[in-house]
Amino acid sequence: MSKTKPAKATQQIELRGHIIDSQILSRVWSAIMQANADFDLLEIQVGRNAQETSYARMNVIAASRKELEALLDNLEQLGVELVNAQNARCAPIEMDGVLPDDFYATTNLPTEVLVNGVWLNVENIEMDVAIIIDAAVPRAYCLPMHKTQIGQQVVVGHQGVRVHPLELPRPSAEHFSFMQSSVSSERAKSLMIADIADEIADIYKQHGKIGLVLGPAVVHTGARKYIEELINMGHVQAIFAGNAVAAHDCEAALFGTSLGVDLQTGDPVQDGHRNHLRAINTIRRYGSLQAAVDAGILRDGIMKASVLHHVDLALAGSIRDDGPIPDVLTDMYAAQDRMRSVLQNINMVIMLASMLHSIATGNMLPASTKAVVVDINPAVVTKLADRGTTHAAGLVTDVELFLRELVENLKAKRL
Amino acid sequence: MSKTKPAKATQQIELRGHIIDSQILSRVWSAIMQANADFDLLEIQVGRNAQETSYARMNVIAASRKELEALLDNLEQLGVELVNAQNARCAPIEMDGVLPDDFYATTNLPTEVLVNGVWLNVENIEMDVAIIIDAAVPRAYCLPMHKTQIGQQVVVGHQGVRVHPLELPRPSAEHFSFMQSSVSSERAKSLMIADIADEIADIYKQHGKIGLVLGPAVVHTGARKYIEELINMGHVQAIFAGNAVAAHDCEAALFGTSLGVDLQTGDPVQDGHRNHLRAINTIRRYGSLQAAVDAGILRDGIMKASVLHHVDLALAGSIRDDGPIPDVLTDMYAAQDRMRSVLQNINMVIMLASMLHSIATGNMLPASTKAVVVDINPAVVTKLADRGTTHAAGLVTDVELFLRELVENLKAKRL
Amino acid sequence: MSKTKPAKATQQIELRGHIIDSQILSRVWSAIMQANADFDLLEIQVGRNAQETSYARMNVIAASRKELEALLDNLEQLGVELVNAQNARCAPIEMDGVLPDDFYATTNLPTEVLVNGVWLNVENIEMDVAIIIDAAVPRAYCLPMHKTQIGQQVVVGHQGVRVHPLELPRPSAEHFSFMQSSVSSERAKSLMIADIADEIADIYKQHGKIGLVLGPAVVHTGARKYIEELINMGHVQAIFAGNAVAAHDCEAALFGTSLGVDLQTGDPVQDGHRNHLRAINTIRRYGSLQAAVDAGILRDGIMKASVLHHVDLALAGSIRDDGPIPDVLTDMYAAQDRMRSVLQNINMVIMLASMLHSIATGNMLPASTKAVVVDINPAVVTKLADRGTTHAAGLVTDVELFLRELVENLKAKRL
Amino acid sequence: MSKTKPAKATQQIELRGHIIDSQILSRVWSAIMQANADFDLLEIQVGRNAQETSYARMNVIAASRKELEALLDNLEQLGVELVNAQNARCAPIEMDGVLPDDFYATTNLPTEVLVNGVWLNVENIEMDVAIIIDAAVPRAYCLPMHKTQIGQQVVVGHQGVRVHPLELPRPSAEHFSFMQSSVSSERAKSLMIADIADEIADIYKQHGKIGLVLGPAVVHTGARKYIEELINMGHVQAIFAGNAVAAHDCEAALFGTSLGVDLQTGDPVQDGHRNHLRAINTIRRYGSLQAAVDAGILRDGIMKASVLHHVDLALAGSIRDDGPIPDVLTDMYAAQDRMRSVLQNINMVIMLASMLHSIATGNMLPASTKAVVVDINPAVVTKLADRGTTHAAGLVTDVELFLRELVENLKAKRL
Repeated sequence: MSKTKPAKATQQIELRGHIIDSQILSRVWSAIMQANADFDLLEIQVGRNAQETSYARMNVIAASRKELEALLDNLEQLGVELVNAQNARCAPIEMDGVLPDDFYATTNLPTEVLVNGVWLNVENIEMDVAIIIDAAVPRAYCLPMHKTQIGQQVVVGHQGVRVHPLELPRPSAEHFSFMQSSVSSERAKSLMIADIADEIADIYKQHGKIGLVLGPAVVHTGARKYIEELINMGHVQAIFAGNAVAAHDCEAALFGTSLGVDLQTGDPVQDGHRNHLRAINTIRRYGSLQAAVDAGILRDGIMKASVLHHVDLALAGSIRDDGPIPDVLTDMYAAQDRMRSVLQNINMVIMLASMLHSIATGNMLPASTKAVVVDINPAVVTKLADRGTTHAAGLVTDVELFLRELVENLKAKRL
Repeated sequence: MSKTKPAKATQQIELRGHIIDSQILSRVWSAIMQANADFDLLEIQVGRNAQETSYARMNVIAASRKELEALLDNLEQLGVELVNAQNARCAPIEMDGVLPDDFYATTNLPTEVLVNGVWLNVENIEMDVAIIIDAAVPRAYCLPMHKTQIGQQVVVGHQGVRVHPLELPRPSAEHFSFMQSSVSSERAKSLMIADIADEIADIYKQHGKIGLVLGPAVVHTGARKYIEELINMGHVQAIFAGNAVAAHDCEAALFGTSLGVDLQTGDPVQDGHRNHLRAINTIRRYGSLQAAVDAGILRDGIMKASVLHHVDLALAGSIRDDGPIPDVLTDMYAAQDRMRSVLQNINMVIMLASMLHSIATGNMLPASTKAVVVDINPAVVTKLADRGTTHAAGLVTDVELFLRELVENLKAKRL
Repeated sequence: MSKTKPAKATQQIELRGHIIDSQILSRVWSAIMQANADFDLLEIQVGRNAQETSYARMNVIAASRKELEALLDNLEQLGVELVNAQNARCAPIEMDGVLPDDFYATTNLPTEVLVNGVWLNVENIEMDVAIIIDAAVPRAYCLPMHKTQIGQQVVVGHQGVRVHPLELPRPSAEHFSFMQSSVSSERAKSLMIADIADEIADIYKQHGKIGLVLGPAVVHTGARKYIEELINMGHVQAIFAGNAVAAHDCEAALFGTSLGVDLQTGDPVQDGHRNHLRAINTIRRYGSLQAAVDAGILRDGIMKASVLHHVDLALAGSIRDDGPIPDVLTDMYAAQDRMRSVLQNINMVIMLASMLHSIATGNMLPASTKAVVVDINPAVVTKLADRGTTHAAGLVTDVELFLRELVENLKAKRL
Repeated sequence: MSKTKPAKATQQIELRGHIIDSQILSRVWSAIMQANADFDLLEIQVGRNAQETSYARMNVIAASRKELEALLDNLEQLGVELVNAQNARCAPIEMDGVLPDDFYATTNLPTEVLVNGVWLNVENIEMDVAIIIDAAVPRAYCLPMHKTQIGQQVVVGHQGVRVHPLELPRPSAEHFSFMQSSVSSERAKSLMIADIADEIADIYKQHGKIGLVLGPAVVHTGARKYIEELINMGHVQAIFAGNAVAAHDCEAALFGTSLGVDLQTGDPVQDGHRNHLRAINTIRRYGSLQAAVDAGILRDGIMKASVLHHVDLALAGSIRDDGPIPDVLTDMYAAQDRMRSVLQNINMVIMLASMLHSIATGNMLPASTKAVVVDINPAVVTKLADRGTTHAAGLVTDVELFLRELVENLKAKRL
């Protein structure tokens, strides 16, 4: 299309590890070809068997420096290293909450930046945020756009940034090999539930932390008693949910209904559709969930158990809420910050019947955190998998029956 | 649109019973207005309280005799009776398998025809078939279009036909009040499963019959062992399914896999995707499921239990089948006839993860037969409800976990 | 269960209008029986034909005063009037944002309260909020829980409140008779789209107002150009959406992509998955959408057209957002207030591929506002219908192809 | 687990082509490791750039001969060739319709068998059937289990069989690059529809053949007129559908309704729910669709256009059918045979809103045939992709609006 042939741009790259059987090499070449770029293989050593690693070195040739940069940006996420890597480039924040145009946007994979010739691990990695470098310490950490402040140094371009793709789990390994499975409702759930129970038990023994993301169906289906049991058994360190979960859980504690349906009989209760409003109003009168528990008003449920067992609770508002319950953070960025702190040091997240909050959680989780997604709607599970949370097991199943069986499994272990 | 005002056509009708609180009267008037017809209320006696029945008599006035006939056709299905009812009209079959143009197409509701001044109950009622009258006996019965033969007398028009709408269940009645509920995955399933277990126990005590409609997910999810238990406990008298269920159940019995996935580990088995073909081929070698069981080849599963417990088995082929298993009826009308005989005298049908066969079953069931539909896909449950099977409870849930809990409930009853 | 027979409680009620064919009478009796109460019919006059209205007067007898109150609460929503109605009871707010325990929670139906013997219309009616009475003016209006302030007088109990159920549309009436239809993807959409276009044209001629609720799929599918056309044709007075719609619309304007996919070719663009972050960052640099339009940065799209045509824009944040775009309200209650003001005096709302924002909108709309819900997921349409927004037409279809055909229809009208 | 170390089994294999960027090599190694086998790389030559092909030779070592066979069975489907390949082994059919236990079950990929030292292409390749060898001719061809006859020679084991995996389409190639895309409703459909129209035009110019698979929603949504136009424009050479499509298309031709809903107004017609029975009955009276068209009874629609334009029509019955229409094949294996003949030499198949018939078609299609799947339900599209029909483009969209836009696109081409 152009008349004069533009100058080509070249960069030498290296790959190491199980680059063939983990498909890294083929994905690198595929990315190069999709970018209409080319490669010239300089050296390859292929492992002779399943144990030996491989090594490849090649030149990547793109039509322009700009296209090369964009391509290298993609290749980095496959674990490619640039030969003769140079220090990461930085630019200062010139306006609070506004980044330089060419800021480096993170992935959720383990990431390092080269600062003064030293590879620094980027702290608090999460997707789609900026990397701030404090060269004095030295230290590199993630910061969302809206929290950046004038004077901070932000990584720009891809130079001096490297990303470590997660190793795909080997077959016949430990639990969680199922997470490679495609999402399907036509699979045995009992097996997967037993695997998840094993994983929870392992985390328990190692004094690890588990977070739950809850949608209101957990309460509507009467499954709140299983969540309560999980909390009482010591398996829940953090809960992330919206106003509706708190409101209906309190409704159930106060009136025995959820959205006006009696949880003992399954029948709608006379005038019950307003019970959640009454429940919210009652908690507002006490001023907080803690105060309501202290006053002995909330006799059972998720909120009561969370308060008693000091579960880290992050309740985020949404545009469709009534009330809200006083503990709910109504500003979305305050809520995100609370979530970030709640998700800190979490080993596994179990997302139960909640699309909105699960996607929000997925966005903030490092790729290395284990995640289980349970929803009766296959689209929700697929959507979560689409968003880069690949270290995830998806179960298309009924959240109530899932929790019942999970709790039975855990009880049988007598931890 | 017409220039000369056409002669109006009139018919006097009567309604009896709880015609107001069961909405019969409002539906009658609604139908009259939708047909652009009119009514003139001649007499009304309204019950003074919830126990007393009501009575209404009115003239229906339509623009033409043809429109009146069409309207009365609808009204009959609401239980309306024509004042001065006349004998049902008949016409002879003149060509095998072809009905008179204006043949009366049945509903699935209890139906009577007036023959020589006597109301005869129509036998074997099902939807969308013809009514044959044998005046000599006298007797009236249903026959599908393709089975009619030259010389039979078929009811034509609506005259002399009356239909009895099912009474809506009163609140706080027995089990199955849940069947009025809208279909939703956001409801407590444990309560509904307990209700269904009670219903099964009642039928067991009354020596009634239960039929299952099974889709292949029952096998893929590992739930075949629960079906086996239900059969062994004496709760299954008939099974309706396709080739796939039989094939994968035999695959599981022979190879421990379903669609090549190991049911013990959940992992795909080397070369296992062909196991179902091998299983089919094996049964073909023995000639029948019975022969394979006799030879000791099928050691467990739905097919073996069905053979041993003399469950009535109707296996219908479909266009997507491999094989087939020798017991499968490959002609659709032979299969429908088999189903009709299998569904005879069934008190309750439980449809599990099978859209095609559940719709087929729904088409053949009288409206008075209790039906439970279990599927993880809400569209399937909704679709079944759309097709006139109103006496049905719909559960949007996981079929494996549903069956596990149902079997646990029934075991606890020690019937 | 109780030992001494409790005193029964009685109230005389009246019903007027098409109470039989609109099923009001049967629903009243059904509600009475579900509440285990009884009735004694004192007088009934049934219209002799489709034009004449009916009248019924009866005593309602419940087991206790409390049960009677709860029952009457339900009956009011069916348009029942209490004989010898008494003034609405009020209680003062004693703590900001906290209501009296027995506050009256509104429906979204037209509502009146009896104050000093005069029926006052309740202003700004919406679901699940409180009614404040300012007896001095006199005036009654809705207020959400969190906005109530010490000293305001709130309606408590059901006494002196009456609700006017919407008349069901008569068949063969104007447009929008389709809204009675059950939700289904198996229907002709072209007919429904033509009806909607007629409705939009009517509103245009009467200088009415239309609001759109938008989900990000509108941008991802390339349908933003049709929204732009609708705005330019003068058919959009308000838009309600989230940060994602604004961000991807700006991404499309700045980079020609949506979520990194080129809208001209459908192919993913190299490094494009970060374009939406860059777009957000750019708007943040300008400070607002208005400023970005003024600077000539946004050359096309929904946001630009909205700014130029002074469309009332309500952008609400959510917990999963990046950025955000500066115009987005991040506090949920600020966003709800903005929505309330935006939805004021809107004649029709069209909800396009947005579950969260559509439910929020549905919660705030009076039942009398026309609503169209378009989503490819039947569950979304069903869920919206479940929440009391009954004056709604649901289309299970593709939002891109829907908008294309709608715009073609409207262009052909040359308004 | 075993006490004495079993003898290992070894086979030398070769791979040729773009084995790294097409992921063949990594998939081969992954398969070896999943089988708990091992490999020893003997030789590798890696292409230095995107144009050069690669070559690898290695020993595969499994724990036993049986495990090796199973593993090689999988590897063959990846295009692996055995060094020193031996003639395919055969066994005779000893009972009609029953195969030898270890028969080779085909894939839908291009396949060759080694007979007397010559590689023969397997004719009529389709999934999950047997390969018959007629050594005299010599010739190899596919045969479904139930059609095999005593005396035929069937390929057993994997020896002497090789399979050619389809090359993944290179990026920025011709049309149909979209078929790599994941299934999503959140994509621009107009672009994909334009691509499909281009593909149809290409096939038209090359005098190729296109087959349609139709579900009843095509008629219910009023889209039958677009199918009629496609047939009239010469773009349809074969149609595969069920009784329902034929019945409702005839219902529309005779009464203007589909399932009783007026296709001009969208309103249900008085007594119209029986129109499809009347339509079926009418065609039965004439004896065939051809006869009904000859008699001038069917004035428009899919069936009439198919008869007039000599479209190859395969109508298959199902267990849920009424009637049936006389042209419908009620035996499933007769119907499959008819489909096989209809699908012969088809270049592209477009599957429209039909799960059952689309899966049946997918099972019979060679992998090389282009396929387009259009359904509003993402699960249908996903399910089809799961079944090995990978050369497919999936559109989650509305079939009516899809067809309208497709026809517009094709008209604009004035072919």
